[in-house]
Amino acid sequence: MKIIVIGATGTIGKEIVRNMEERHAVIKVGNKQGDFQVDIKSSQSIAKLFDTVGKVDAIISVCGNLHFGPLHEMTADDFNIGLQDKLLGQVNLALVGQHYLNNGGSITLSSGIVSTQPIVGGANATCVNAAIEGFVLGASIELKNNQRINAVCPSVVTESLSTYGPFFPGYESVSVTRVAKAYQRSIEGPLNGEIFKVW
Amino acid sequence: MKIIVIGATGTIGKEIVRNMEERHAVIKVGNKQGDFQVDIKSSQSIAKLFDTVGKVDAIISVCGNLHFGPLHEMTADDFNIGLQDKLLGQVNLALVGQHYLNNGGSITLSSGIVSTQPIVGGANATCVNAAIEGFVLGASIELKNNQRINAVCPSVVTESLSTYGPFFPGYESVSVTRVAKAYQRSIEGPLNGEIFKVW
Repeated sequence: MKIIVIGATGTIGKEIVRNMEERHAVIKVGNKQGDFQVDIKSSQSIAKLFDTVGKVDAIISVCGNLHFGPLHEMTADDFNIGLQDKLLGQVNLALVGQHYLNNGGSITLSSGIVSTQPIVGGANATCVNAAIEGFVLGASIELKNNQRINAVCPSVVTESLSTYGPFFPGYESVSVTRVAKAYQRSIEGPLNGEIFKVW
Repeated sequence: MKIIVIGATGTIGKEIVRNMEERHAVIKVGNKQGDFQVDIKSSQSIAKLFDTVGKVDAIISVCGNLHFGPLHEMTADDFNIGLQDKLLGQVNLALVGQHYLNNGGSITLSSGIVSTQPIVGGANATCVNAAIEGFVLGASIELKNNQRINAVCPSVVTESLSTYGPFFPGYESVSVTRVAKAYQRSIEGPLNGEIFKVW
């Protein structure tokens, strides 16, 4: 399969690429590095990416920024960061990407454990991650040509504990190897509209 | 209690007002009608509303627009309609409203059955409604002064079947009387971070 990974240069993205390259041709996309670059907040940038790359068999999105901060100080502009970046950015990769996906191809987006298990300062993150899972459910009943869409919902990854650990007290971390397997299940398995929880 | 209802002039809003006025002082807000008007897409408009009304004991939001249409034709601009209106509009009512809420006060937002039971043409609606429920969960652990936040998640209402019925084949509709009771439970009961499903 020809697989495009958007967010290929991040901690999880690198391991997805390692896993996928054992069996598939992988196009690695970052916002500054990789084979190609994209700004997922820009429809033009996404359209240009797919025009350049052409048709693919699987789209993996493991990217997007969120706002973290106390609810008591949060503004609409703060909140919109996550809506326009991790949420609409990933949604738009799916909206544009569906037209560049071969028959039977799949789209896999990324949410995260806070969609159902909130953390302090994470109101934007819980909202956005729940929204991504909602989009996957809503889109899964409308894709054409046997296309499928799923999301992977990991706990905090062990390899990022030095940065994010303090925000996840008592959460069991998961290795990027385990997380990458969930993306593999989404792409190489038969399921549609599924949220693959990894924890 | 002093209760502000944003969306007071809609089908569900009117019944919430009828229910609440039996026991409370109710401020009715619409986008064009009501005691006061607000554009929930505008932070300035929301700030002006609360500056005018002052402190309240409960905020009810039963408003917001979505985009409906085939996934295959959907664009990022289409999708952003629901993100900026029903989602960020309601979120911003909570973000601003928390600062105008008396100790022990509550915020009640509105999602809908498609958050977990998708309909054709409703990818934006499923995403946004799931996002509202996620925000409620994320915000519920951070509100101060014994404030609470919940959402009501109704099925299609019987009184709107002539308009929306065809989009909900086989769904059991619910009366606005039943839906209004869920808002009453949210406001007069003790729960926090709860999604009151009405179906």
